[in-house]
Amino acid sequence: MNKLLLLPLAGTLALAAPARAQAPEKTDAAALAKIKDEGLNRSQVMETAFYLTDVCGPRLAGSEGLARANAYTKKQLTQFGLVNANIEPWGDFGRGWDIDKSYVALTKPYYHAMIGVPKAWTPGTPGALRKAVVYVNAKEEADLAKYQGQLRDKIVLLPVAAPLQPNFEPDAKRLSADELQKLADATAGGLPTAANRPADVPDAARLAARKAQLALRAKLNDLLITEGAAAVLSAGRGTDGTVFTTNGAPYAADAKPVLPELEMSGEDQLRLIRLVEAGIPVEVEMETRTHFQTQDLKGYNVVAEIPGTDKKLKSEVVMLGGHLDSWHAATGATDNAAGCAVMMEAVRILKATGLKPRRTIRIALWGEEEEGLYGSRNYVKNHFADPATMQLKPDHEKLAAYFNLDNGAGKIRGIYAQGNEAVKPIFTAWLAPFAELGATTVTLRNTGSTDHVAFDAVGLPGFQFIQDGLDYFARTHHSNQDTYDRLVADDLKQASVIVASFVYDAAMRDQKLPRKPLPAPTPPRVP
Amino acid sequence: MNKLLLLPLAGTLALAAPARAQAPEKTDAAALAKIKDEGLNRSQVMETAFYLTDVCGPRLAGSEGLARANAYTKKQLTQFGLVNANIEPWGDFGRGWDIDKSYVALTKPYYHAMIGVPKAWTPGTPGALRKAVVYVNAKEEADLAKYQGQLRDKIVLLPVAAPLQPNFEPDAKRLSADELQKLADATAGGLPTAANRPADVPDAARLAARKAQLALRAKLNDLLITEGAAAVLSAGRGTDGTVFTTNGAPYAADAKPVLPELEMSGEDQLRLIRLVEAGIPVEVEMETRTHFQTQDLKGYNVVAEIPGTDKKLKSEVVMLGGHLDSWHAATGATDNAAGCAVMMEAVRILKATGLKPRRTIRIALWGEEEEGLYGSRNYVKNHFADPATMQLKPDHEKLAAYFNLDNGAGKIRGIYAQGNEAVKPIFTAWLAPFAELGATTVTLRNTGSTDHVAFDAVGLPGFQFIQDGLDYFARTHHSNQDTYDRLVADDLKQASVIVASFVYDAAMRDQKLPRKPLPAPTPPRVP
Repeated sequence: MNKLLLLPLAGTLALAAPARAQAPEKTDAAALAKIKDEGLNRSQVMETAFYLTDVCGPRLAGSEGLARANAYTKKQLTQFGLVNANIEPWGDFGRGWDIDKSYVALTKPYYHAMIGVPKAWTPGTPGALRKAVVYVNAKEEADLAKYQGQLRDKIVLLPVAAPLQPNFEPDAKRLSADELQKLADATAGGLPTAANRPADVPDAARLAARKAQLALRAKLNDLLITEGAAAVLSAGRGTDGTVFTTNGAPYAADAKPVLPELEMSGEDQLRLIRLVEAGIPVEVEMETRTHFQTQDLKGYNVVAEIPGTDKKLKSEVVMLGGHLDSWHAATGATDNAAGCAVMMEAVRILKATGLKPRRTIRIALWGEEEEGLYGSRNYVKNHFADPATMQLKPDHEKLAAYFNLDNGAGKIRGIYAQGNEAVKPIFTAWLAPFAELGATTVTLRNTGSTDHVAFDAVGLPGFQFIQDGLDYFARTHHSNQDTYDRLVADDLKQASVIVASFVYDAAMRDQKLPRKPLPAPTPPRVP
Repeated sequence: MNKLLLLPLAGTLALAAPARAQAPEKTDAAALAKIKDEGLNRSQVMETAFYLTDVCGPRLAGSEGLARANAYTKKQLTQFGLVNANIEPWGDFGRGWDIDKSYVALTKPYYHAMIGVPKAWTPGTPGALRKAVVYVNAKEEADLAKYQGQLRDKIVLLPVAAPLQPNFEPDAKRLSADELQKLADATAGGLPTAANRPADVPDAARLAARKAQLALRAKLNDLLITEGAAAVLSAGRGTDGTVFTTNGAPYAADAKPVLPELEMSGEDQLRLIRLVEAGIPVEVEMETRTHFQTQDLKGYNVVAEIPGTDKKLKSEVVMLGGHLDSWHAATGATDNAAGCAVMMEAVRILKATGLKPRRTIRIALWGEEEEGLYGSRNYVKNHFADPATMQLKPDHEKLAAYFNLDNGAGKIRGIYAQGNEAVKPIFTAWLAPFAELGATTVTLRNTGSTDHVAFDAVGLPGFQFIQDGLDYFARTHHSNQDTYDRLVADDLKQASVIVASFVYDAAMRDQKLPRKPLPAPTPPRVP
């Protein structure tokens, strides 16, 4: 799940089409029983998740880990019995980047090994460094002047937003009955992912502040290069050894040079700052090695199919997917190996049960989601329509539905109908058999920040499920602790069964899912 | 706070002396107002805590950090106006040990920097190693045979007790009104530290299991040395980047050799185990450098005094203290820089207010608590009585009271009367002015695991305060996250004021505090 898009999707709050009178929605109890039996009693979702996380490793956009995951998923989907498995390029992305070594420690006034992670796409250090530290605490551009002449050959320490405190809130939570009821009662629109978004969703003032901060940081980067500083230590949120990571340079092949930079644990960074501010000499030892890959600048999605069996309907497609890429400090278990493992398990269940879907089912594991939904947006543009022109390709008409999973590793509690009034009763009927598994809620509310948005943006019926948050925002989302250990097998089994059932229902239905009116052409929403 | 002693102190559950009729306890409202004003409005407790933690660093028994802290506290107490400040040897302890470098990473099947901490008193590696990993999962001695011939030059992976799970409980908690009421209602005896001990206080069966585990580990150590393994990676409890640490070898000068060993983050260790168990080749890179200090094997306590002003009473002493040593992976902020900072602040407050205590007040900052309350036990033995003989030294009669703080960084909610019925109404009167600051509870219950036990064991009135647990057991107690950031200034200010007041009350009272009957001689309680 991409964090840059956690803002109101004002442009996509299309009015829903008026609800039409519909026949009661049919579901197939026998098929559902087979799906449940396979998915709950012979699940392979945790094994798939293990390969995606522990075995493939971190899966940063363009990285070797993502390439391993592309190869693994193509092979595994084929082994599950899917056909036409393909690692499909979506267009130009940028440089690959991987870490070869990362070490950082306090060496004066005493030794202390610290927790820090290289920011993505930053260069390594020229060998092992041991340098004095300078604290640069600039609030605005004018503050930078006073650091001139102070930075040569120094390790530069940047401020931490706020002191840390003991945490009186649990990391992990499930959606309460009240929260689900609020979602059920909601009308279309509203903030995305209302049930489990963090409190600090950026509003206009915060976005402006963020923009100013980025501009200041760009000026600082110039100063650091000009002055000849050695490296940068910065820190975002995160405590207890948990470090939330991001990139420290663009992935573009022609990106401006930056210094080696680590994202530090809050505790370590604050200790350094307190020591420096008390006038105590501080020395840090660090060694980072990273390497770039510039041979292949393309980005990829992995796709595979279960062919439809109905002569008339098999040219129509039900899609399901999640993004395969992750951030680099852990193995992206909840963001989003969980979603990929569930989607892969859903198609495995459908193959294993021997059910014969009328429409073709296509799984897509997206690349480069974290940088702006690039894999899905470009897939949609290549196959269905470009939102900038809204000129539709022939396959636009053929897509029955797209289902996405990317709100962490928690079980499914319902689905966002994304303002599509006509789809609400259909989803309500499809969800009814899963009340005993905790999934009950269809909300008209929009949610954003992940790949269904790419479909929604061109008027295709794309949906994200409502999931329990667990410790997604408190602990794992883009952090160095997003590992296999965060996955709860029962939650992923439940989600796999529900997704398999929804996909099967969509593949069997006489009509494709109803759509909202086509949106007007809009410029691409790349932040 | 020492964890080895978290077991019922059956030997010290002496029956309390029958309550005598007493005159209403006098307190001095004017003095109290001065103490509150100084401690709440001109507190230096956080600055003292900063020096103890960030500046002195980790303070493992016998380490350079503890030596720095001894020197700092002696100097600082003198600057506060205390006299007779002294770094007083208590007897023979063992080797000093410090870390000079610690680095560990997964290098195959991909690179991932891991979080691991050298176990205390383990040797370093011979330079940087990069080795294949073997998983040794022995449940009993017979299982060891199958690893013969498998371990040469390998990094040995030991099991993790249980898989990790998302955490639905908050790390930090305060004592509820209910919990305090239960403490207030308690009779003497009971489990120690009932209000805030972890759920896993060892019972007899667990102690037996632990003993068997230690015996198995000793056999394994022999095998590892014989077979020529390169190093060991083990893991205790702890998630999210938090690692709880302990020692991997004795501190005794003649300790048997062991291999280099790191205590790993649970997530990292489990990832290694899962990969190995799936048959995927795993390679780990590590470099640890540690050094031993064997010139001075003595242990020390830091003591300093505010001389009494009453001709008759100044030969009597009110003591207060906490242990200055810590574990090595962080800076021992909650265990127990917090307690030391509060005790130092309490004597600073008493000096700054210009109050004239009748009795002499002596602060003691204990060494080597974590290994078995060595500093306080030996101080008591050297100055007051040996519990093994119960032959009393002259100063045994002169001690009016000892107050200890070592249950984390949380504010004071009351005090353990340690089965001393006669002291309960006195403490109730002394505590009354602090109800508005949240401290209300006097319990007859015993608490153990820290230095007041050394006094109690020879019939001296030694007491530990009841404190809010905050995130002590969930997050900081002996972990790599026990840093300054965990300290809550308001809690430490409150505690400082209450301790200063109790110490002052004890120094002004006409009589020394009532005592329990002298215990029978007991063998030293060293686990």
